[in-house]
Amino acid sequence: MSIIVVGTVGYDTIETQGGKAIEALGGSASYFALAARFFSPVSLVTAVGTDFRKADEELFLERSIDLRALRKSPGETFRWHGRYHEDMNLRDTLSLKLNVFADFRPELLADQCSADYLFLANISPELQAEVLGQVKSPKIVAADTMDHWIANERAALIKLLPRIDVLTLNDQEARMLSGESNLVRAGRGLLKMGPSAVLVKRGEYGVLKFGADSLFAVPAYPLEEVVDPTGAGDTFAGGLMGYLARSGRLTEATLRTGIVYGSVMASYAVERFSVERLAALTWDEIDNRYRSFIELTDSHHSRWNFQ
Amino acid sequence: MSIIVVGTVGYDTIETQGGKAIEALGGSASYFALAARFFSPVSLVTAVGTDFRKADEELFLERSIDLRALRKSPGETFRWHGRYHEDMNLRDTLSLKLNVFADFRPELLADQCSADYLFLANISPELQAEVLGQVKSPKIVAADTMDHWIANERAALIKLLPRIDVLTLNDQEARMLSGESNLVRAGRGLLKMGPSAVLVKRGEYGVLKFGADSLFAVPAYPLEEVVDPTGAGDTFAGGLMGYLARSGRLTEATLRTGIVYGSVMASYAVERFSVERLAALTWDEIDNRYRSFIELTDSHHSRWNFQ
Repeated sequence: MSIIVVGTVGYDTIETQGGKAIEALGGSASYFALAARFFSPVSLVTAVGTDFRKADEELFLERSIDLRALRKSPGETFRWHGRYHEDMNLRDTLSLKLNVFADFRPELLADQCSADYLFLANISPELQAEVLGQVKSPKIVAADTMDHWIANERAALIKLLPRIDVLTLNDQEARMLSGESNLVRAGRGLLKMGPSAVLVKRGEYGVLKFGADSLFAVPAYPLEEVVDPTGAGDTFAGGLMGYLARSGRLTEATLRTGIVYGSVMASYAVERFSVERLAALTWDEIDNRYRSFIELTDSHHSRWNFQ
Repeated sequence: MSIIVVGTVGYDTIETQGGKAIEALGGSASYFALAARFFSPVSLVTAVGTDFRKADEELFLERSIDLRALRKSPGETFRWHGRYHEDMNLRDTLSLKLNVFADFRPELLADQCSADYLFLANISPELQAEVLGQVKSPKIVAADTMDHWIANERAALIKLLPRIDVLTLNDQEARMLSGESNLVRAGRGLLKMGPSAVLVKRGEYGVLKFGADSLFAVPAYPLEEVVDPTGAGDTFAGGLMGYLARSGRLTEATLRTGIVYGSVMASYAVERFSVERLAALTWDEIDNRYRSFIELTDSHHSRWNFQ
């Protein structure tokens, strides 16, 4: 039930109205792996530079995250610098340096090529396809994408979609990729492009899942304070994919429960800067919030048959 | 289990990107009553002018809505003219004329004064208090409000809050009335001001309910097309209050089920201009969408006890 994740591992400088984190561990694959590892073994496929800190390597290794396919190359690690508005749904990228990630050509180890579960984090569709091509017969493939790839590598992305099971993207990206302004039509349009499930991430408003003949909607877990929303989507994907790998099946029920676990993991991630909260998290905390989440969304349905 | 609703009945001119309705039946009390009547008898307390159309009076009467406290006065009926943006969460009020509603002094009939259920739609807090004062011993009182009253009649509104059980308002209004920018803190702050339940309406993102020791969140029912969002909040309140009156109790369970019924009613209301869809609705349609709604939000919870 091992999961392969390909994506970035880097250093983020994050500014919010309430504080700042400098050169903190980040990147889509970091958040994903630190969430998924609670459910299933995870192998991280990525590139870092010679400046990658020993302490961060230890952080992954101590949590049993497989780093055999983390390639250390001459040069600097991926870096991102962003600033959030008071409305944390909005942020500006102040600088983005791919550094060693620019020339990254992922190579999976022999045993990793027979993995059952694969998550293609938010990187170029070509790189996503390259990793997918190396995995012989995956049971479940999920991929994330973003506006940049939709605008600039649309053809490669569209070619990838029939090869994946689960697509995650935000509401604006769903509209952009489908060409439909209504979100329900957008979701249904994306299903026709290949994936069997489309998960639209709506930030503080939760997630909407589209399937062949079903719709599922969950709110986000309401928090009194959000410190740093960075990585929430990747953490969500980690909880989701971790649960799917753990259960070994892609069904309506496992997807729904996985979406709830993903939402739980994301709600913890945003409570502190960087991966701080995720790294310190315990299974009891996850289990407690899972129960709260179920209570939060349980409509106590008592349909009336009057009239 | 009869419900008294005080609010506006008027004529709306509504422009959207897709069409226009001219002098169509509207007003908070109209939407509320046409939704609530599926669950419980409703008495409408309002004022209209001599131009109020016979056909609209018939529309209410044919649906067993009590109009004995609908006062017809010399002058014109309340009128509103609004235009929606492409993003239907945004709209501009082009004109608003209270007309005969400006001098309205509600007077309940003797039997109405012993009603158990009362909904104070979005009118001035003073008028809301005046109606509340006439009802001897209501079992459940709910009230709606808006930014205009929060800004201009804050003192009267705050004085009203300890006298009501359920407060409904939108997210921006919740922040404004509580003085808290975080929605969870805003909801908890509003609870301290009096109501035992605070329902924050988030339009297409659903509803968040705050109670003494519980939180409940539901998404809105996802629609392929929204024709006219006017009255969605009042329709929601109608379904909610109707269900509460029908069940006769204000508990966590009845509130949650009521919120789902309210969401179902609102999802129908926005499918057509004005009250057109609500007026034509059948109980079977409500029941069908209620089932879909439960399926939409059912997380198939299967908590894992591993680790």
